[in-house]
Amino acid sequence: MTQMPLIDCLQYANWSEKIFREMRAGGVTAVHVTIAYHENFRETVLNFEQWNRWFEQFPDQIFQGRTGDDVRRAETDRRTAIFFGFQNPSPIEDDIRLVEICHTLGARFMQLSYNNQSLLATGCYEAEDPGITRMGRQVIGEMNRVGLVIDMSHSAERSTLEAIEISDRPIAITHANPAFWHPALRNKSDDVLRALGQSGGVLGFSAYPHHLKDKSDCTLENFCEMIARTADLMGPDHIGIGTDLCQDQPDSVVEWMRVGRWSKDIDYGEGSRDNPGFPPFPSWFRGNRDFGNIAAGLRATGMDDGEVAGIMGGNWLRFFDASFGPAK
Amino acid sequence: MTQMPLIDCLQYANWSEKIFREMRAGGVTAVHVTIAYHENFRETVLNFEQWNRWFEQFPDQIFQGRTGDDVRRAETDRRTAIFFGFQNPSPIEDDIRLVEICHTLGARFMQLSYNNQSLLATGCYEAEDPGITRMGRQVIGEMNRVGLVIDMSHSAERSTLEAIEISDRPIAITHANPAFWHPALRNKSDDVLRALGQSGGVLGFSAYPHHLKDKSDCTLENFCEMIARTADLMGPDHIGIGTDLCQDQPDSVVEWMRVGRWSKDIDYGEGSRDNPGFPPFPSWFRGNRDFGNIAAGLRATGMDDGEVAGIMGGNWLRFFDASFGPAK
Repeated sequence: MTQMPLIDCLQYANWSEKIFREMRAGGVTAVHVTIAYHENFRETVLNFEQWNRWFEQFPDQIFQGRTGDDVRRAETDRRTAIFFGFQNPSPIEDDIRLVEICHTLGARFMQLSYNNQSLLATGCYEAEDPGITRMGRQVIGEMNRVGLVIDMSHSAERSTLEAIEISDRPIAITHANPAFWHPALRNKSDDVLRALGQSGGVLGFSAYPHHLKDKSDCTLENFCEMIARTADLMGPDHIGIGTDLCQDQPDSVVEWMRVGRWSKDIDYGEGSRDNPGFPPFPSWFRGNRDFGNIAAGLRATGMDDGEVAGIMGGNWLRFFDASFGPAK
Repeated sequence: MTQMPLIDCLQYANWSEKIFREMRAGGVTAVHVTIAYHENFRETVLNFEQWNRWFEQFPDQIFQGRTGDDVRRAETDRRTAIFFGFQNPSPIEDDIRLVEICHTLGARFMQLSYNNQSLLATGCYEAEDPGITRMGRQVIGEMNRVGLVIDMSHSAERSTLEAIEISDRPIAITHANPAFWHPALRNKSDDVLRALGQSGGVLGFSAYPHHLKDKSDCTLENFCEMIARTADLMGPDHIGIGTDLCQDQPDSVVEWMRVGRWSKDIDYGEGSRDNPGFPPFPSWFRGNRDFGNIAAGLRATGMDDGEVAGIMGGNWLRFFDASFGPAK
């Protein structure tokens, strides 16, 4: 098999030295980590600070990634490059100029909405989706200018299609699966997936149980067969991994992710009253040491080494190279 | 005369296209501009944003400087590199981790105090100077680590001597003059100047009238003779220019600089009830097109071209090269 970077384009773990060492043990080259769900700008700065603390404490395991070349540096150094992203535009508040400030601080992905309506776009749990807002159009232009990637993982159908259309640069859906395989509000229609692939964007496949057929019992074979079918739909160069791994998180965190400060009532999101917490990940993907299972599962579907290498990281690296700098 | 960069290591103008064009007309290669007097972190971010707006609007005149090499790029491009600084540690509030955040956003100088006592050090208008505080020692170490230069222009004597001693890297006094020439709370003792020079630091000479002998009537000859005498005291490699040019500012701004939000009473600082506003600059230095007068005045004192080139920018450039990156 050819040498390849291993890139997971979405994790939100309860970070610790243990997990950073597992990343190294698993040969993970780069991870896109969420550093804001509902935080405003000032709160997000505290999250940048917390990562600076970890970079100082664990320089042999991790460093801050800013460019595609940092993925190559991580491979050479045998460390993991950490790329920052927001799952909501809350860090830019109502100020388009915060897009550049956040990019300077290292943000590389920003979702235009997280389940709910935002100032920019509609989330996948809203009953109505009026599409990209006036401010959303302006912010898409600014994100294109500075090199902050539009991520529509938690957005609704029309908003997503419009974002693909309006953006001058390819966008990402960092962590979701096709609805044809498992219908869920968070999974994506064939129309969205086709438009994403045709525009040069990339989809990251999620291993979060609520996005999987049979949830925690989903088999590796079924998961990899789904990837192979999506490769047929989108092309093998437009897909990658975005596990949505939420390792070692207490259930209080999933409540923050779902409810933030927007409701006084509990909202169970993809869970339910009987199943309110983080669901257990499937047995073949419990953490950063298990990516080899996915690669093996992909080869078992009949994919060649080049296709598998692309899905496991090469496709994201090409996307990083093209996306994180100023517009040409 | 040898080719040289022209660096002014302190200005706080009412920025406009007119001034940016005057910088180009005057051949100014780099300017350290103040972007915070009393602003907290969140307010300082708005000032970074305002500069990003100007960088977008006037790319043919100015760009953001981050390293010594950006001064060389400015010479090649015939543009002016703008370096950011704070005249007070208010932007880091009570949070040492904001030092790195501000450095990432481009801050390259930070005064440990501005006239008053701060969380870090004492200002030159306080009656007592207990020296560098507990937090001050920690922040000096952090500034050393990331490459944010300690500037003691508005600090008191003991705090300044202690900062020079505690800091592992040379510090700056970006805008002040020697007290032997014009005794003023803002001007510096021989002890401070000697310690600054011996530690590898740099003093920038101010043309702000309150720092000048005979104030607005100070002659160019007198000013340049003072520089020559300071070169004898500190060595010709440890001095540069820091005009403190406050061009086109309304008098309301000097009130903000002096009083911020720390007093409900008016404090006239270096001015007086009869003379509360910005004083007029001397006839030989009215703005960015007048640096040639200073260079000519220095040559008239008998300095050679190399010494003049060092004072007009070469010494600051060497300091920038050594100071703005992480500690080795």
